[in-house]
Amino acid sequence: MTPIRTIEWTVDKADRLVPGHVRMIDQTLLPGELVFLEIRDVRDMWKAVKTLKVRGAPAIGVAAAMGVVLAAQSAGAQTGAELVEEVNRAADYLATSRPTAVNLFWALDRMRTLAQRNAHLPVADLVLALAREAVRIFEEDVGMCRAIGRYGADLLRDGQAILTHCNAGGLATTRYGTALAPVYVAHEQGKRIHVYVDETRPLLQGARLTAWELMRAGIETTLICDNTAAFVMKQGLIDAVLVGADRIAANGDTANKIGTYGVALLAKAHDIPFYVLAPTSTFDLSLRSGDEIPIEERDPGEVTNGFGKPTAPAGVPVYSPAFDVTPGGLISAIICEKGVLRPPLEDSLRLMS
Amino acid sequence: MTPIRTIEWTVDKADRLVPGHVRMIDQTLLPGELVFLEIRDVRDMWKAVKTLKVRGAPAIGVAAAMGVVLAAQSAGAQTGAELVEEVNRAADYLATSRPTAVNLFWALDRMRTLAQRNAHLPVADLVLALAREAVRIFEEDVGMCRAIGRYGADLLRDGQAILTHCNAGGLATTRYGTALAPVYVAHEQGKRIHVYVDETRPLLQGARLTAWELMRAGIETTLICDNTAAFVMKQGLIDAVLVGADRIAANGDTANKIGTYGVALLAKAHDIPFYVLAPTSTFDLSLRSGDEIPIEERDPGEVTNGFGKPTAPAGVPVYSPAFDVTPGGLISAIICEKGVLRPPLEDSLRLMS
Repeated sequence: MTPIRTIEWTVDKADRLVPGHVRMIDQTLLPGELVFLEIRDVRDMWKAVKTLKVRGAPAIGVAAAMGVVLAAQSAGAQTGAELVEEVNRAADYLATSRPTAVNLFWALDRMRTLAQRNAHLPVADLVLALAREAVRIFEEDVGMCRAIGRYGADLLRDGQAILTHCNAGGLATTRYGTALAPVYVAHEQGKRIHVYVDETRPLLQGARLTAWELMRAGIETTLICDNTAAFVMKQGLIDAVLVGADRIAANGDTANKIGTYGVALLAKAHDIPFYVLAPTSTFDLSLRSGDEIPIEERDPGEVTNGFGKPTAPAGVPVYSPAFDVTPGGLISAIICEKGVLRPPLEDSLRLMS
Repeated sequence: MTPIRTIEWTVDKADRLVPGHVRMIDQTLLPGELVFLEIRDVRDMWKAVKTLKVRGAPAIGVAAAMGVVLAAQSAGAQTGAELVEEVNRAADYLATSRPTAVNLFWALDRMRTLAQRNAHLPVADLVLALAREAVRIFEEDVGMCRAIGRYGADLLRDGQAILTHCNAGGLATTRYGTALAPVYVAHEQGKRIHVYVDETRPLLQGARLTAWELMRAGIETTLICDNTAAFVMKQGLIDAVLVGADRIAANGDTANKIGTYGVALLAKAHDIPFYVLAPTSTFDLSLRSGDEIPIEERDPGEVTNGFGKPTAPAGVPVYSPAFDVTPGGLISAIICEKGVLRPPLEDSLRLMS
């Protein structure tokens, strides 16, 4: 079975791209229920992004672009200029849904620019052009993930087992994911790959999302608590670690979900290769090192009351950073859609960008 | 404030040791509520041990010994021989409450032996002798913890911060605990020690118990997810790691709560001393190395349904070992009630035993 279709544009009539609507998984109901939302209105898309029904930077970018199309196709604009105005209004609105997601702004800017450049077209043609751009953003993401998957799959052999942390899987993108893409591609190639999944406290993206999408795709999966990774490695069960990235600095230092740095240290202690899988859009060579990446702190309630009941004393001080920074020196390779970057990462990142 | 009184013998009249009853914390209600149980009947003690109202090997041993006294004082025996029979019956019964707790059997055997040797005494005197033995087991445990605390406190300086995993605190013993004893003693000495507490999945003993007892004793506490330990160390926040032990082999290999091995590797990577604090009763020199320690697996439901609702897909395979083994080579010192054992641990363990 192929990876789950996280989000996609669905046409209302078979032979026309517009009008259409967005079909996507309600990720807030996973792993309990698999419900596909049919979103036909820009306000519903705003709510879906806001309430994390869709999450993961690449998937959010696609959702926002498709949200603009939803607004455009129902705007009732009489002229291109009117439609451009409507596109800008929708983009401004969608931008308020998740203020920190970089891909959201990037995708909305592409939609604005496309509209601006084609303001001279008849309204129907301009709506079609917008729909094509949204689908292009979607397809670029699928292609990027598949490319990462192909390069990464070459590093995996039949019968091997990998460990991953958090969810950098299909659910965080349009399909395939980043860290999990090599597993899916290897699986398509007929290689059996077993995946050990860190549950990833406090929000349990590993347990809730990664384990779910892997099982659904027929990949052998074992769920472990975060603190069990070291012992699993010691028993020789892990051949490689595959993780995603939120941001990669010029020297290879990589910000990713809290706990990634610890996994990297444990991998090194057991001589296990540690791979970061991320698109070039994650590279931020304006940062010399990971020291320049600000560390966001999460709500303590996610740790003390994350499951509907208190699991710690009331008022206990909590330190809950959202992510940590893994030094480039601990990374065996960075795998992006253009290829495999080996150390010295400073040089290979500069050459690849 | 001194550490919480986990369990103690409470006399019914001020000038007589018997009759009396057991006062202990219902640990199943922590951290939500602090409720002291007054246990006057051996059946209630059996239930309390069985249902984990009292837990931690040393505390369970004390509970069992005191349970025998509860049975003896209400037996209505006419002769020493009758009372010995009653003691044996109570001990057999209490032994079924937690079949794997070594300290339980050890404490019950002490009570049986004491009764057998004093079968010639008048019944009232024999009951008193049993009560004294139970109190002696209690006091030995307090003394053991305090001794570990004193040796350990010498390794801590004012203003330092330590990291601990799971609960090897006062709640696991009569008072002070093992891993936390140096913190309490240092606190009494006027040293300010900050404790970072791993929440310790899956059962969250760190969040539920360790954080609770430290806060109650006025110790500065910060709760973190297990996967955050590495990042906290990287920031230079930790001066030492203090953990307990379930079993220590002749070469220093130490079995303790799952996750301890990972913390030891992270401590080494950051040049942070890693101390194991445990009584000599934990040493098992019949085992050459940790490889001979069997690894018990826990119920997957603790990982997938541990918070009252499912947090992972139904039927996901889970690997949940109860503990792991930290190689002696990663341990800076073992601190027991007799002193500080430095590497080579094989030699110092042999000399100290």
